[in-house]
Formats: sequence, structure tokens, C-alpha cells
Amino acid sequence: MQKEIEYTEAIKTKYPEQIVIPIARDAEGKANPMTVGWTTIVSGSPAMMAIALAPKRYTAEAIRHSKCFTIAFPSSEMAEETLFFGTRSGRDIDKLDVTGCAVEPAVQIDSVLLTDAAANFECVLENEVVTGDHILFIGRVVASHINTQPKKRLYTVAPGGKMDGLS
Amino acid sequence: MQKEIEYTEAIKTKYPEQIVIPIARDAEGKANPMTVGWTTIVSGSPAMMAIALAPKRYTAEAIRHSKCFTIAFPSSEMAEETLFFGTRSGRDIDKLDVTGCAVEPAVQIDSVLLTDAAANFECVLENEVVTGDHILFIGRVVASHINTQPKKRLYTVAPGGKMDGLS
Repeated sequence: MQKEIEYTEAIKTKYPEQIVIPIARDAEGKANPMTVGWTTIVSGSPAMMAIALAPKRYTAEAIRHSKCFTIAFPSSEMAEETLFFGTRSGRDIDKLDVTGCAVEPAVQIDSVLLTDAAANFECVLENEVVTGDHILFIGRVVASHINTQPKKRLYTVAPGGKMDGLS
Repeated sequence: MQKEIEYTEAIKTKYPEQIVIPIARDAEGKANPMTVGWTTIVSGSPAMMAIALAPKRYTAEAIRHSKCFTIAFPSSEMAEETLFFGTRSGRDIDKLDVTGCAVEPAVQIDSVLLTDAAANFECVLENEVVTGDHILFIGRVVASHINTQPKKRLYTVAPGGKMDGLS
């Protein structure tokens, strides 16, 4: 049986929630990773993915600058960096440098891949759509990569940013 | 280390993937549930959610007709109905009737809630956006409900529609 309740309470039933890390270069060429839970595939052929960002996010600025971005699926071993990427702004620091997170070059776009991620998808920006207090950045996948050692994805498993792999 | 691979292989790293069941009434008033994995929250305030549907889906037609839809989070006990909802079209049958799936009335929109779901969100259609071979239907949440008995969400845990709860 259902009972009506405030949205902010009801939405706590969403966990576990998948995590992706979009990465885009800013005007200085710095590759900036951010942690995002509001994401979905939006097309099969062509393959396309969307991420919802608040307009003030530095990543929104970086994506608009470079017109492309990586979407990495962090592995269950990357909880520490992923939390850092999601709680600090790239306006002031180089998040990849500070965390020592291993990267390798993207092949089709001017961005990087996360070496220890479960997978990385190189995306070209196709469209942006305002949705309430966020903006959906929609990317077309132009190259795909997986880890040479199969990895589990990382999820937010409870409110407050608690992250883990899933069995 | 990453290796480049076809998208169709790389995207298999996405599992577990959350499931939602949008429900909209068609022109005859039949409430039609469908199973969708491509979904995300897209705004916090106002609360908004999006689902990606192929244009030919009967649910796309029903949402356009009624301009509103429920988004249910099926519980881990609902794998059988959820698979049925995702593999049969409502053009020909009444999926709720055939499965005997328990429903109760929505309170703010002309739709139904799934009684055994973990949660139900009543949405008013705000926008639709073409994204490759799918259409994003974007809804604003106008009422939220949770199960009086806390339930785990249902996920697709492997390719081929294998569904389960997560521990």
C-alpha cells in the first residue's frame, strides 16, 4: 500500500544510484572530473548519453568550452577519488593532479580517460536542454573503452554520499 | 588500463541498471505500464524526472494523450510483472489486468499508482526532447508516495532482462 509523503523523503528510495564521472577540459586545457548521479542513456543508435548539471558547475563551463566530454563509469575501487571529484570545484584546483588519479588520452576527443574506471565513453556535445534547476548535457558517443581487468561499477548506496560496489 | 572496444560491448558494464515503470492512460482511459531503464532525475527544485522512450512505443502515445504519467519504482518482488510490462505492448492488451498487478488511484493526476512498488511519483508532462532514436519525456513531480512497508528497488542486473533486488 502507498502513502503520500514529501518528495524529498520519497526519493530516498532511489538507492543504489549509479555514478558517472564526466570529464571536460576548461579554457586552460585542464581536464576536470566531476561526480554525477543524474545520468542516463538516451539513444541506442547513435549511442547517446545525458548528464544533468547545475548551471553554476565548473564542468558545465568546461563542456561548453570544449564541446566534448568523457563519461567514465568509476570502479568500486574508486570511492575516495569519486567523492573528492563530487565535493570540490575544479575552478580552484586540479582534481586529477591532487588525487593522483591515473588517466590516459582519449582517442577521438580532446579529453582524458580514467585508467582505473570500469569503462569510459568519449562524447561529442550534441545538445543542452534546461530542465528545472539543472541543464541536461546530451552527448553522442564516438569511442568506447573498458578496463582490461573487468571492474564493478561504483554506486551511491545511501544518502550522504556513501559509495560502494554492488554484489 | 583501458582498451577501445565497440560501444555495444562496453555498455555491458552498466549493470546493475535501475528500473522505473511509467504509467499513462491512453485515449480509451486504460492505464498502461511499461518498463524503462533509461531514466534519470533532471531537477531538484522543482523535482523533475525524465524517461527515454522509442517513438513507436504505445506509452509515448499515451503520455502525449494524457499529458501526465506516474513513475513507479518497482520493488524487488515485482520482477515477473516488470518483465511482462517491458516485453508486451499495451496496444493489444491491458497489462495491469492480465498480470493482476495491484493499483490504487493517483491523487493529483489521472493515472494510477502501483500498490506494491517501492515508490510512485506523479508527474505532469513538461517537455519532450528528441535524442537520437529516442524521445526524452520530462515530467514535473506533483505528488510522491512510498510503500507503507519499506521495499527494495528492482534492478536489471545482467544483459537479457535478468532482474533482481540488490543487497
